[in-house]
Amino acid sequence: MSDLLTTARYGDPEARLGVLTDTLRLQLARRSVRRFTGRDVTADELTALVAAAQSAPTSSNLQAWSVVAVRDPDRRARLAALAGNQAFIAQAPLFLVWIADLDRARRLARRAGTAVEAADYLESTVLTFVDAALAAQNAVLAAESLGLGSVFVGGVRNHPEEIAAELRLPPHTVAAFGLAVGTPDPDEPAGVKPRLPQAAVLHHEVYRADEADAHIPAYDARLAAYNERYGLAGGWSDRVLARLRGPESMAGRHRLREILERLGLPSH
Amino acid sequence: MSDLLTTARYGDPEARLGVLTDTLRLQLARRSVRRFTGRDVTADELTALVAAAQSAPTSSNLQAWSVVAVRDPDRRARLAALAGNQAFIAQAPLFLVWIADLDRARRLARRAGTAVEAADYLESTVLTFVDAALAAQNAVLAAESLGLGSVFVGGVRNHPEEIAAELRLPPHTVAAFGLAVGTPDPDEPAGVKPRLPQAAVLHHEVYRADEADAHIPAYDARLAAYNERYGLAGGWSDRVLARLRGPESMAGRHRLREILERLGLPSH
Repeated sequence: MSDLLTTARYGDPEARLGVLTDTLRLQLARRSVRRFTGRDVTADELTALVAAAQSAPTSSNLQAWSVVAVRDPDRRARLAALAGNQAFIAQAPLFLVWIADLDRARRLARRAGTAVEAADYLESTVLTFVDAALAAQNAVLAAESLGLGSVFVGGVRNHPEEIAAELRLPPHTVAAFGLAVGTPDPDEPAGVKPRLPQAAVLHHEVYRADEADAHIPAYDARLAAYNERYGLAGGWSDRVLARLRGPESMAGRHRLREILERLGLPSH
Repeated sequence: MSDLLTTARYGDPEARLGVLTDTLRLQLARRSVRRFTGRDVTADELTALVAAAQSAPTSSNLQAWSVVAVRDPDRRARLAALAGNQAFIAQAPLFLVWIADLDRARRLARRAGTAVEAADYLESTVLTFVDAALAAQNAVLAAESLGLGSVFVGGVRNHPEEIAAELRLPPHTVAAFGLAVGTPDPDEPAGVKPRLPQAAVLHHEVYRADEADAHIPAYDARLAAYNERYGLAGGWSDRVLARLRGPESMAGRHRLREILERLGLPSH
């Protein structure tokens, strides 16, 4: 089956899917949206996004996440400043802050007079971030299906304590990531960003690094061609290396472990 | 808009959505599937699941995950034993092991003769787990759209080193979670598990614990009614407290931090 969605997703005219559904079409066509029209996100739309999020799987049904819906323009502006000065956070009508939430269980325990010591371990920190991510990704696709666009904001981890104060988060919770949501501005100069060839990420039975990495040079060329279309230079590998060079490339997030400890997620 | 999918999702005859799309219907109706027919997952279906996964957002386009598709019955049986003796892993025709992968970037760095010191921080561990979760959740929904069912397996974190050996994972990677995939056995006695009321997880502008938690008793009653239908006793709160009681309730996962350190994800 020849299809433009798949070739765009991989930046590869030879890429094909043998089966295709409406859901896959929606997923393949998704792109991050960073420019929004003035149209608001309605209360019904927000309810639908959260219902989608809650329909995602959750480890042992713990549902170890919460979400704070921020519409107030002043609060959005303050959050934008705290999350890497990204203007689209202030511009989007709705900013969802997904909370890794180990406090709801602690409150249950407090009321029951029992302990929840498992919450103090790295396993539980990982679990709550994963739960929040599964939920948020369902919201992303639900938004697409409603004609809305969105973009994740990892920058809320630049200043977790300030964000916690702004949202009056209780201890044992942290803003995991944000999601700016709104109606896509059709004039935004942006496209579907090509991904690594499947053979670079999919392994059969066992992990084979050399075979996978053999596909990276072709991808670097494809991404360089894509970037050039939007006035940007360079391919993929050089950007990955720049992003992960060291603490100085992390916008403060190298302190996440000590900050989580202070916020009551000690990650033992 | 009255709809049975929403009332089932919340176990609440009053629950309603004001907007509804085919994507939302698919999300609301999803349940974890733990019994599969003998039908295989085709190569085309696997390709589609991975394309869906790759279409999910990824932090800074790092694409910091990989996936190992395990079909070999002996390997599936060994993985089932390592991941909490869950029989459905051996029964499902396809077991996808999602890998939190910080090694691909390290291999890039090695070839380029540069450093990627950011990979050693907790932020990067969190990022790679989140990236893997966003990707995997897209695969879950793509599977649903193809008539396949699935269930996540956090149990791969019970014995990460043994799983790494089985899948020949390089250092700086770890199995984040598994996903058993196959055609649902229509006779499986299972339903859509009701979730917390929206008002218990969705906050407006700021986090309000007391208002949110006021909705938990009603949910405990709903989940107790649901559980009873499947011959299980108890509501939600008691299960959360049992699951998080302490290290002894974690099936070995309280050691995750030291194990990740040994696997080359030191989470500084």
